[in-house]
Amino acid sequence: MNAINVAILGASGYTGAELVRFLANHPRFSLQFLTADRRAGHSMSAVFPQLAHLNLPELVSIEQVNWDDVAACFCCLPHATTQEVLARVPAHVRIVDLSADFRLADIAAYAKWYGHEHHAPDLQKEAVYGLTETYRAQIQAARLVANPGCYPTCSLLPLIPLVEAGLIEEDDIVIDAKSGVSGAGRAAKEGSLFCEVAEGVHPYGVASHRHVAEIDQEMAKAYGHAVTVSFTPHLMPMSRGMLASIYVRSRKGASCDDLRAVLEKRYKDEAFVKILPKGVVPQTRHVRGSNLCLIGLAEDRVPGRILLFSAIDNLVKGASGQALQNMNLMFGLPETMGLDLVPMFP
Amino acid sequence: MNAINVAILGASGYTGAELVRFLANHPRFSLQFLTADRRAGHSMSAVFPQLAHLNLPELVSIEQVNWDDVAACFCCLPHATTQEVLARVPAHVRIVDLSADFRLADIAAYAKWYGHEHHAPDLQKEAVYGLTETYRAQIQAARLVANPGCYPTCSLLPLIPLVEAGLIEEDDIVIDAKSGVSGAGRAAKEGSLFCEVAEGVHPYGVASHRHVAEIDQEMAKAYGHAVTVSFTPHLMPMSRGMLASIYVRSRKGASCDDLRAVLEKRYKDEAFVKILPKGVVPQTRHVRGSNLCLIGLAEDRVPGRILLFSAIDNLVKGASGQALQNMNLMFGLPETMGLDLVPMFP
Amino acid sequence: MNAINVAILGASGYTGAELVRFLANHPRFSLQFLTADRRAGHSMSAVFPQLAHLNLPELVSIEQVNWDDVAACFCCLPHATTQEVLARVPAHVRIVDLSADFRLADIAAYAKWYGHEHHAPDLQKEAVYGLTETYRAQIQAARLVANPGCYPTCSLLPLIPLVEAGLIEEDDIVIDAKSGVSGAGRAAKEGSLFCEVAEGVHPYGVASHRHVAEIDQEMAKAYGHAVTVSFTPHLMPMSRGMLASIYVRSRKGASCDDLRAVLEKRYKDEAFVKILPKGVVPQTRHVRGSNLCLIGLAEDRVPGRILLFSAIDNLVKGASGQALQNMNLMFGLPETMGLDLVPMFP
Amino acid sequence: MNAINVAILGASGYTGAELVRFLANHPRFSLQFLTADRRAGHSMSAVFPQLAHLNLPELVSIEQVNWDDVAACFCCLPHATTQEVLARVPAHVRIVDLSADFRLADIAAYAKWYGHEHHAPDLQKEAVYGLTETYRAQIQAARLVANPGCYPTCSLLPLIPLVEAGLIEEDDIVIDAKSGVSGAGRAAKEGSLFCEVAEGVHPYGVASHRHVAEIDQEMAKAYGHAVTVSFTPHLMPMSRGMLASIYVRSRKGASCDDLRAVLEKRYKDEAFVKILPKGVVPQTRHVRGSNLCLIGLAEDRVPGRILLFSAIDNLVKGASGQALQNMNLMFGLPETMGLDLVPMFP
Repeated sequence: MNAINVAILGASGYTGAELVRFLANHPRFSLQFLTADRRAGHSMSAVFPQLAHLNLPELVSIEQVNWDDVAACFCCLPHATTQEVLARVPAHVRIVDLSADFRLADIAAYAKWYGHEHHAPDLQKEAVYGLTETYRAQIQAARLVANPGCYPTCSLLPLIPLVEAGLIEEDDIVIDAKSGVSGAGRAAKEGSLFCEVAEGVHPYGVASHRHVAEIDQEMAKAYGHAVTVSFTPHLMPMSRGMLASIYVRSRKGASCDDLRAVLEKRYKDEAFVKILPKGVVPQTRHVRGSNLCLIGLAEDRVPGRILLFSAIDNLVKGASGQALQNMNLMFGLPETMGLDLVPMFP
Repeated sequence: MNAINVAILGASGYTGAELVRFLANHPRFSLQFLTADRRAGHSMSAVFPQLAHLNLPELVSIEQVNWDDVAACFCCLPHATTQEVLARVPAHVRIVDLSADFRLADIAAYAKWYGHEHHAPDLQKEAVYGLTETYRAQIQAARLVANPGCYPTCSLLPLIPLVEAGLIEEDDIVIDAKSGVSGAGRAAKEGSLFCEVAEGVHPYGVASHRHVAEIDQEMAKAYGHAVTVSFTPHLMPMSRGMLASIYVRSRKGASCDDLRAVLEKRYKDEAFVKILPKGVVPQTRHVRGSNLCLIGLAEDRVPGRILLFSAIDNLVKGASGQALQNMNLMFGLPETMGLDLVPMFP
Repeated sequence: MNAINVAILGASGYTGAELVRFLANHPRFSLQFLTADRRAGHSMSAVFPQLAHLNLPELVSIEQVNWDDVAACFCCLPHATTQEVLARVPAHVRIVDLSADFRLADIAAYAKWYGHEHHAPDLQKEAVYGLTETYRAQIQAARLVANPGCYPTCSLLPLIPLVEAGLIEEDDIVIDAKSGVSGAGRAAKEGSLFCEVAEGVHPYGVASHRHVAEIDQEMAKAYGHAVTVSFTPHLMPMSRGMLASIYVRSRKGASCDDLRAVLEKRYKDEAFVKILPKGVVPQTRHVRGSNLCLIGLAEDRVPGRILLFSAIDNLVKGASGQALQNMNLMFGLPETMGLDLVPMFP
Repeated sequence: MNAINVAILGASGYTGAELVRFLANHPRFSLQFLTADRRAGHSMSAVFPQLAHLNLPELVSIEQVNWDDVAACFCCLPHATTQEVLARVPAHVRIVDLSADFRLADIAAYAKWYGHEHHAPDLQKEAVYGLTETYRAQIQAARLVANPGCYPTCSLLPLIPLVEAGLIEEDDIVIDAKSGVSGAGRAAKEGSLFCEVAEGVHPYGVASHRHVAEIDQEMAKAYGHAVTVSFTPHLMPMSRGMLASIYVRSRKGASCDDLRAVLEKRYKDEAFVKILPKGVVPQTRHVRGSNLCLIGLAEDRVPGRILLFSAIDNLVKGASGQALQNMNLMFGLPETMGLDLVPMFP
């Protein structure tokens, strides 16, 4: 079969490198263009030595991409820039965008959370939110998929089916999330230095992290009206991995087993979402490097309270892995193609 | 002034080593006896090379302690063993016990959580729960202080004053706690191996961690009746440090500022408990090695919800530091003596 | 094509889990038996939750293996036990042994380093040392391959071609090696605890590490007579990865470029050994999870001295990856089959 | 006694914070001025929250320092800037400079290694190299002490006495050094990011690290003529700690015990340099946070070769601790004042 030519815009960051990791052995997608801004003209091996043994195209500027040769585009550019760049990509190119730029259907919400007007409101209208297990059909037909943030992916996968089943009180949802440092990207910031992150933990973005806008949006869809969840991210002394510990109150006397049954039924045919048996809780290190989401449930000591734990690799199911899963779908390929990597532990 | 002679029972664990760290330069307490079980007969430097340059007594068995020469005893023995050993310590010796054996005033609760009858119920009656800032007067007069667990210390310091002020709903308290691995002690267990803990995070002891019994006990005192909190510990890839992220709902329309004012007033004269200014959240690495507890508050997005963050070093304020703070009190010494260590960062 | 049935003896350790990781997607090898001692009767998912989504056979005891159904066997048992077990495996089964039991051709050397007589001297005679790039032809024909230790693999790959080219002085070879903690296995030992390993570095096994016997053996072959190298391992605060910093003195006025040319020529057709360009040094994190060995060279300040740096993943090229590479060879399969994993960074 | 007023120039970096940690409880030195460039006008607690509970002066610009009120100055400024600033400090102020600017007595060597002419050659003439145990007398009398680099401190403490005793061959000294990331300072650089450093190890500055110029200088003094050592630093996945593994060949048939005897005699009255007993090797985590240098020796397998291992905390004995040790000396105070901190492990 013919190869499907791929461009990665913004390939010099961690999500770009992850895409290369998955695509290097992909049977159908073929890497044609890798772009970078500051590092255009360099080889990918200079930027990411772990990829040096692969036969990769050189980094070029976006202007050097010959779009006639490209059928699929992964966009890993910063927000705002993304809107401007993607508005100029020809219509025949199908896009998965890993930035936050097209995730919020409501451009007023975008303006509020990101501090400026949306620059591509028309494009926004056709964007599909890329939480694969929830929007599979729409993604298959989409030209532009807005790949979800890592926190929303990790939080929404366990929550949405339970909300849709009417089993969770809407005014008492607390999400305590823990993320590895790679979520902050490769930018040289004091807060991401080894010495500032190792051997310690702290909350950040309290009551103000932008990802909560996505969670709001999807929870509103699931409930049929706006709800507000409590969401607090914490920075972990680890490179990869994300855990959401979600505290909920059940409705209608539903037990922990009832909730587990709903999730098991909902995800039983999914390749990447796994509901753990009773008594088992997930560890982020058990999904490391894979596209898996592991979900565990437990009954709290407080009657009526249920604990949900959801673990992903923030760079895979929380970013590049889900992006490839979506692109596979968009091109009619098996969703797992290139993503059948077994988690690496230890 | 005369030195006060000290024995540390069970000095070959991490809490024992921490006590030595603080006592090595203490102006009044003098280390006379260090005991160990398996390692009796060895030098402390063989067990803890970082202490080799100090002039320490050799490790002996408990039977070799000459209690006539001892005025103060820190007990770092495992639970159950502790009850048997301390029942035999002469009455003139004042004791701070770091185990869980005397923390629960209700011996029925002890039996339920620890799986066996209490072996020293009479001694239990005279034990004082050693949360210093809450029970200072009783501790000063006590012969036996039950030093609180790390999780209860970290959780109760922010909660108790707010509960006592009537500002927190009792049926909606969620404590998501994160601890360094040293909390599991120096025992060789698969779950504490570097490869099993590094680069990842997971919950453990869900709805069943024994420390919650202490939290229950103290919350019941503060509320005047039994309450049940939600408490979930998580194991962090770090050696030291503990963070409690506490999600509460305020009563009487109290705002985050109202709560902060209560805590500021309550702790304004305390040497070790610090309320952070508005907008600042604590990091465990900023208390590393010190006896400090840093508390930050934030208003949640959900109206009426307040976030409390409390950070301690689990081995210091969560164990050996608070133990020395209590012993200082019991001997009429300044509470901070030997504990004025500045946190070590990075 | 027919599947080739595989047994892994001792599958409950880290090297066993790595083999499963590679074999789960292997086109030809099919996992039939996984054995464990203490954990026989358990599911693999209970021992290694990261493998739970795979459809794996249950752990059984070695006695339960039906050897008639097995063509290929990976042995991950402890040393000494290995000799006894493998002596009883039927002759039709081809074996790659990851223990140290058959690495030393001289059973007197074995007795000296391992403290007891060799229990299977006849089997030893047919064993081939499995440093793939050096003994490829013999491995293809072998029934029993003794997979090299991680330190010897990392050290010998850069050294052997240079020694064979006559370019390195024999009396001035210093190997300063650094290893991740997974090299110590999953056994619960105090020295492998998170708190004992994190945030620090130390040498161990100084002048006495058993792996040096393998290095001696192979260096003697390369030089044509016995030589003694200086070898000092260090334990790193990381789970995976191994770096050998090798300090040599060149012969015949050979420059760093001369040495690089020898290595480049020797390894130019190898899939897994890569010589880095001038000025580039390897990082262990750039081979993480892959079977690659990256080798960098640099001229020292001291005239005539050359620095060699060699990086592998100790669990992959240093253990399970090389084992599969060898087994592929033994069954006439492409050496890279199942091993084309791109390193995972970060 | 009167307090001695102190200024710290460049207090917003890690070495500045360490000085504050030691000086906060110092009986004689009193912090009067803390300067910062970009952060002048901020409180120290905003820059280093772990110091918030101390009553510290606000950060000011260097121009705002009233030198009439200052007797002692620690300079933690970047190199080159340091020369310009210190040239303007009044003569009554005694200075310990932690930069590299005055460490090389030969200003031509400075120009070669640092890429520009020395800007304060006259000041250079009066500078004393601050390796305390070697230059104690000169330091006591000095106005300006050039505090040694971390790598030279760690390497020279074991080497100098052995060289002076004539026991080490000069043409075969290999220093393989391992450092924590804090040695790179708090500057936001890609190479110091958590994800770039965690879970891996790599050499850097191969044959070109500037600290080797200091080692050359001091080794030349010890030998009486120029020698060139092999020195290779490696970056460790840890915040603090430095280990030098030094491979030497002994002269005159000297054994490992002979070398140990020389070092034991040389350092027997030193508070901070400790020679470990036979068979014991140092771990960096056993000096963490303290001013100790632990030195272990071992006989190599290669006859005539001896291994020296030296461990320090790079921020303490390798920087701020030694700086205070020197300043204590300069003011006639006990060398250990403010530095009697017990290492923190775990």
